[in-house]
Amino acid sequence: MAELETTTPREARRLMREGRWTGPTAGLCPGHVQANLVVLPKAYAYDFLLFCQRNPKPCPLLEVTDPGDPEPRRTAPGADLRTDLPRYRVYRGGRLEAEPTDIRAWWQNDLVAFLLGCSFTFEAALLRAGVPVRHLEEGKTVPMYVTNRPCDPAGIFQGPLVVSMRPIPAGLVARAVEITARFPEAHGVPVHVGAPEALGIQDLNRPDFGDPVTVRAAEVPVFWACGVTPQAVALNAKLPLMITHAPGHMFITDLPAEPGGEITRRPAPR
Amino acid sequence: MAELETTTPREARRLMREGRWTGPTAGLCPGHVQANLVVLPKAYAYDFLLFCQRNPKPCPLLEVTDPGDPEPRRTAPGADLRTDLPRYRVYRGGRLEAEPTDIRAWWQNDLVAFLLGCSFTFEAALLRAGVPVRHLEEGKTVPMYVTNRPCDPAGIFQGPLVVSMRPIPAGLVARAVEITARFPEAHGVPVHVGAPEALGIQDLNRPDFGDPVTVRAAEVPVFWACGVTPQAVALNAKLPLMITHAPGHMFITDLPAEPGGEITRRPAPR
Repeated sequence: MAELETTTPREARRLMREGRWTGPTAGLCPGHVQANLVVLPKAYAYDFLLFCQRNPKPCPLLEVTDPGDPEPRRTAPGADLRTDLPRYRVYRGGRLEAEPTDIRAWWQNDLVAFLLGCSFTFEAALLRAGVPVRHLEEGKTVPMYVTNRPCDPAGIFQGPLVVSMRPIPAGLVARAVEITARFPEAHGVPVHVGAPEALGIQDLNRPDFGDPVTVRAAEVPVFWACGVTPQAVALNAKLPLMITHAPGHMFITDLPAEPGGEITRRPAPR
Repeated sequence: MAELETTTPREARRLMREGRWTGPTAGLCPGHVQANLVVLPKAYAYDFLLFCQRNPKPCPLLEVTDPGDPEPRRTAPGADLRTDLPRYRVYRGGRLEAEPTDIRAWWQNDLVAFLLGCSFTFEAALLRAGVPVRHLEEGKTVPMYVTNRPCDPAGIFQGPLVVSMRPIPAGLVARAVEITARFPEAHGVPVHVGAPEALGIQDLNRPDFGDPVTVRAAEVPVFWACGVTPQAVALNAKLPLMITHAPGHMFITDLPAEPGGEITRRPAPR
């Protein structure tokens, strides 16, 4: 683990490929963008790509691979998406079939992989700016809630927006907005500040996914669009085959975790 | 004309629908985003959507319609893309077939419309900030150049990046970058500042499209990704049918022309 915290993304991916790291990726390779993975057959790829285009805040697309090609040439040249994540989830007809550490047995020539930005990137920036991130302090998974706000549907994909919540001291809310604004490819600015009931959230202590966290006096619950949204929507479509990363077990790209769409679109030269 | 400069987008579109305005749209409905139009059959829509995702600077997508639906529900509810532009171009097999003011005769149930941000939006912001826009001063079309830089291909779509050029006084170059950075959905920051030869441009006085403009002493040629890129790439693919706006005859959306991806994604409430 200590080794993985200071290694390069390429080396971390090699350890995962060799089955020597099968744990979660939070805190690994700081300074590099981690990504959500959604793999589905080409027949459904147009609708899913359009869903992402219509809902950019929950679905910040970093890369879409060509059918059958397991190499993410734009965000991690040389990597193999079938082996280079620590753990996957395989679904058939919307039901979980397996949680393997390697998906070569399921790979097909018509599969397309979507890599989407994740909130790990902006959480590190919040911490550097002195904004507390409660679920990290408490050693928990960020609380997530299904809202009453429908996503803009596309073809077979539809469903509600899922948000993550971080309690922010009232005096730091604007700072948290400023900082996350710099990361449009990691969900960007919050979708909602305060008033959870207006999103249809009845009880902050009962999240739909993840763990509840402490909200202290003079703190405001701040809600960001969540990468679970496209997974939930895709799951709901009950595709014959869909593969994702296992929760918390992300793909580590070569992209530097710095602000600026242009910069984060391409890996740094080696 | 004077009427159109102060009217609402909805009213301007009505005049175009009724055939009462068939001219170019520069300067019309200031304060509202204008868009490039590309219409093609659904069979090619995945490749084109992926091309836009992979090349966001020349292809800033504002909206993609559902197959056969001529209404851009997200950027101009109630509008009809078959009638509400002043003039179109219809291509078959990559060859220009007609330049009608109405495309209902060509419409098919499998057509998908792509609306892409255009540089009119950021030019108005440059002028407001005291940055000169030479081709407007000289009453010309912005000069455009085919570069030696390939776009990231997607399926059947491939080709070089096309850029537009505006000469900027050296002391205002940084300001021009700052301002256009606020408009990621209208091509965003320049792709290149100075050194046209590094883009493969031999002679600024001989643009591939548009008109040459005067570059004065102590001015630097600044290059932005150009919306002609996706049109050139689509034309090059020689699709059985493709329809675009006629050059300069754009679609006027309801989107306010203000900075911020979030704000410009949806029309203001009426």
